[in-house]
Amino acid sequence: MVRGKIQIKKIENTTSRQVTFSKRRSGLLKKAHELSVLCDAQVAAIIFSQKGRLYDFASSDIQKTIKRYAEYKGEYFVAESHPTEQYVQVSFYISVLSHFYVSSITYRNLY
Amino acid sequence: MVRGKIQIKKIENTTSRQVTFSKRRSGLLKKAHELSVLCDAQVAAIIFSQKGRLYDFASSDIQKTIKRYAEYKGEYFVAESHPTEQYVQVSFYISVLSHFYVSSITYRNLY
Repeated sequence: MVRGKIQIKKIENTTSRQVTFSKRRSGLLKKAHELSVLCDAQVAAIIFSQKGRLYDFASSDIQKTIKRYAEYKGEYFVAESHPTEQYVQVSFYISVLSHFYVSSITYRNLY
Repeated sequence: MVRGKIQIKKIENTTSRQVTFSKRRSGLLKKAHELSVLCDAQVAAIIFSQKGRLYDFASSDIQKTIKRYAEYKGEYFVAESHPTEQYVQVSFYISVLSHFYVSSITYRNLY
């Protein structure tokens, strides 16, 4: 079956948008899996639906991939960035991870 | 042009693997972009090639997406996980945090 090209802009009809989301989401996660297997690549994909539901794929442990990403970016900052930008970027990671640090204390108090 | 189905396993020929990686990587990042626009979804994709080169896409700030992911998972742990698993997961985030915290001190000493 041949279909015409669609325009890449937000689908206004809610039902169509949800159907498209479901199909393309599955397609994307499948393609991510295939890329990782065929080419021996480390792949991670994170998708939040408009309603805030999470769908993800990771060829290996997603936390390792995020950590590798953070490390890669960290090294990049040293080589390329403006010092102020570095500080902003690094501060971000501290703030994200502080969230987990605080959470972990809460968790330990729960048990 | 109609092609036969290919088997999803690692491509052994290095040249073929690199060509496939290049084409499928572009395809995946394009599809990720289209999904985010068409369906108003928040999408992030991280790809490391076999040689360790990074390719990524994010519909909005990738750090925000990772933070949202971490928060989503954090909430999930409270509701669903075994306490020991929580501790392991949370420890991971602390270890990533430490990496960046140490880096930030190093950066500040550089300037």
